[in-house]
Amino acid sequence: MSRFTVTYRLRAASRAEAQARAEGIALEQTVEIPRNVVPAGYVADEILGRVEEIGSLGEDLWQASVSYSPDSAGDEFTQFLNVVFGNSSIQQGIRVTGIDLGPEMAARLPGPRFGIAGIRALCGRATGGMIAPVLKPMGLTPAELARLAEGCVRGGADIVKEDHGLAGQPSAPFRARVEAVCAAMRKVRAQTGQRTLYFPNLSGRADEIERNLRFLRDAGADGVLVMPGLFGFGLVHRIATDAGLNLPVMTHPSFLGPFVLAPDNGIDHGVLFGTIQRLAGADISVFPNVGGRFGFSAEECRAIARACRDPSGPGRAMLPSPGGGMSVARAADMQAMYGQDVVYLLGGSLLRDPGRIDEAVAEMRRALPTGA
Amino acid sequence: MSRFTVTYRLRAASRAEAQARAEGIALEQTVEIPRNVVPAGYVADEILGRVEEIGSLGEDLWQASVSYSPDSAGDEFTQFLNVVFGNSSIQQGIRVTGIDLGPEMAARLPGPRFGIAGIRALCGRATGGMIAPVLKPMGLTPAELARLAEGCVRGGADIVKEDHGLAGQPSAPFRARVEAVCAAMRKVRAQTGQRTLYFPNLSGRADEIERNLRFLRDAGADGVLVMPGLFGFGLVHRIATDAGLNLPVMTHPSFLGPFVLAPDNGIDHGVLFGTIQRLAGADISVFPNVGGRFGFSAEECRAIARACRDPSGPGRAMLPSPGGGMSVARAADMQAMYGQDVVYLLGGSLLRDPGRIDEAVAEMRRALPTGA
Repeated sequence: MSRFTVTYRLRAASRAEAQARAEGIALEQTVEIPRNVVPAGYVADEILGRVEEIGSLGEDLWQASVSYSPDSAGDEFTQFLNVVFGNSSIQQGIRVTGIDLGPEMAARLPGPRFGIAGIRALCGRATGGMIAPVLKPMGLTPAELARLAEGCVRGGADIVKEDHGLAGQPSAPFRARVEAVCAAMRKVRAQTGQRTLYFPNLSGRADEIERNLRFLRDAGADGVLVMPGLFGFGLVHRIATDAGLNLPVMTHPSFLGPFVLAPDNGIDHGVLFGTIQRLAGADISVFPNVGGRFGFSAEECRAIARACRDPSGPGRAMLPSPGGGMSVARAADMQAMYGQDVVYLLGGSLLRDPGRIDEAVAEMRRALPTGA
Repeated sequence: MSRFTVTYRLRAASRAEAQARAEGIALEQTVEIPRNVVPAGYVADEILGRVEEIGSLGEDLWQASVSYSPDSAGDEFTQFLNVVFGNSSIQQGIRVTGIDLGPEMAARLPGPRFGIAGIRALCGRATGGMIAPVLKPMGLTPAELARLAEGCVRGGADIVKEDHGLAGQPSAPFRARVEAVCAAMRKVRAQTGQRTLYFPNLSGRADEIERNLRFLRDAGADGVLVMPGLFGFGLVHRIATDAGLNLPVMTHPSFLGPFVLAPDNGIDHGVLFGTIQRLAGADISVFPNVGGRFGFSAEECRAIARACRDPSGPGRAMLPSPGGGMSVARAADMQAMYGQDVVYLLGGSLLRDPGRIDEAVAEMRRALPTGA
C-alpha cells in the first residue's frame, strides 16, 4: 500500500544525531515502543514509520522525511494528524514542513468540497478578490447583528462571516442569532439581487454540535465558520465529507497560534493554514494578515496563500482569507500580493458608524479591481 | 456578575508598552474591534475585557491580569478557552500563566466528576501511587491486545490504558477492540478479585464520537482516554458533565506540545496540563515525565502535579499521570518527587516479553510503596 510522507525540520548537531532523531519520530508516531520490542512481521514491516531521507539545511538544521502506512492513520482525520505530529509535537526542535499524501491517503482525504470555483459559483463573483465583513462585536443582540448583515448585503459583500467570538453569549443565543441573520439577509438578497453568503460561527457543547450544524443548514445559512484549534480538525473533515449537509467550511485560526510562533517547533505556516486545512476539507482558510495586529511576515502570508491555492493539490484549490490589515488605502497593495483568488476579512474598520456599514462595504468593494 | 481573570506574561520594553499590550488583549479576546468603536453601555461596561493589574517580572517581562465577563464565555468550555486565549495565542510574547475563575465561572465549570478520591474508590487503591500499563503497539489484533490486558490485571495494574495511537487501524477496529479487552478483563477480574479499570482511547469521526462513547460505556469500559489537542477540550467537558454517562476521563497530551515548548508563547505547563484539564473536568492528566523521551524539567513536572492536586481548586483535585521515565530502578525517586496521588504510565518497558507482562507489572507494583 502506498505510504504517506511527512517532512520534519530537525535541530541536531550532526547527521548521525539527525538520523537518530528521525528514527525516534518514526517510532514515537506509530508503535511508541523501543525498536527492539517492535513485533516482527506486519507491525515492523508496515505499521512502523520509516525514515526515507535525511538532508542538511545548514548549521544544525536537518530535513527528515518519514513515511507512514495508511493503516496507521485509518480513515479518521484526527488519527491522521495524530500520526503526523501527535507526540512529536511535544519534543523540542521538531517542525512539520511538508505532507505528501501518496495515492492511498489522497483517495481517503479528498479535500475541499467546494474549493475556489465552488465558492465563486455560490456567491456569484466569477473573478476578482472577494470581501467578507465580520458581524461583531459580541454583546450585540440578534436584531443588531441582523441589521449589520443587511448593510453588508446592500454594500455588496460576498460573504457575511460571524466573528469567531460569537458563541454562547446570553445576548445572542446561537439559534436566535442564526435565524435573525438568515431572515434579514434573505429579505435584502431578494430586494437587491445580491447573492451574499452567510457563514455563522459553529459553536455549542460537544454533544450539541451535530444538532447545531443541522439547525444552521436548515435555517438557511450558506456555510459555516469552524475553529479547528478549539473543536478539532476532525469536525472540519466531518462537515466537508457530508454530501447531505453540502456546506462550505471557512476555518478560523483561534487557539492555533502556538503551532507556528516558534520556528523550531510546531508546524510551518503554509502547512498549518494551507495544507492541513485543505486536507481537512476547508474551502476558505482565515489567517492573520501581514500589517495587521499579528506579526506574520509577508513571506509567511505568501506561503499560506501558495499552499491554499497550489493547483497540484492536495484536492481542490481553496481560498486564503487574510484577516486584518485591509483597507481602501491598501487594496491595491493587497491585490498585488494575493492576486484574485482571495477572501479579505473586513473587521472593526467597518464599524465606525454601524448604521452606514453598507457604504463602508461598498467603498471597499469599489477599491478592489473586479479582475474581469 | 463576578468576572474571571486570566494572567498573561508579556514581553514588552516598558510598563507603558505592557499596559498597551494588555489593553490590546482585553479588546482582542472579546469585542475584537478598536476601542473607539466599542458600543457604549453593556458591551463596553460588561463584555469588554478589563486590565486589572500590571506587574514587573524583571527585564522585559511583565505580568498582566485581565478580567472577563462570564457573559463573554457563556456555558461552552470551548468558548471559555476562546476568551482566555483564542486570538492572543497568535501574537508573539504572550503566555497564559494563570486562570482564576471567580464564583460565577466556578459554578459553571465544576471540574472533575471523580477526582483523586473517586478514582481511588473505583480501582480499590486507597493509598500509594497507582500504575497504568499501556496497551500497544498499534498493529496488534483485538485478541493480542486483550491478552496484554489480562496480564496487566494479573500483575496488579490499577488502570489499563490504551495507547493514544490505537485508533482506526484495520487490525483492531474500535468496537472489536473494546469488546475483546472488556471481555478479557471481566474474566480475569472475576478470577483474581482485582478491580483494574479499563480506559479505551476514544476515537472516531466527529459524528461518531457520541455513539462510540455510549458504546464503550455499554461494553463495560470503566473510563475513557481523550486527546483534547485533537478532539478539543469541549469533549472532555461534555463527558465530565454527563451524570448519565458517569465516566472518568484521562486526558492525553498528543498534539498539545507547541503550547508549552516556547517560553514566551502559549500556556504554562501547570496551567495547560493541570488547571485547564481540571477545569474541563479531567480526572487524570497524562504528561511527559522528566527523564523520559521528552524534555520537560523536574520543575515543570512538579508545577503540573501541583496544579492537578491543589486542594484549593478549581473543583476536585485530579491525578497527575507522568508518562515515560518510570522503571523499577527509579520508583523510589519518582515516589519522592510525586508523592502518593499519582498514576504512573508504564509503556514499552513492559513489552520486552509480552507473554510475561504480568510479571513486569507485578514487579513494578512491588517497587512502589503502598503508602498505607
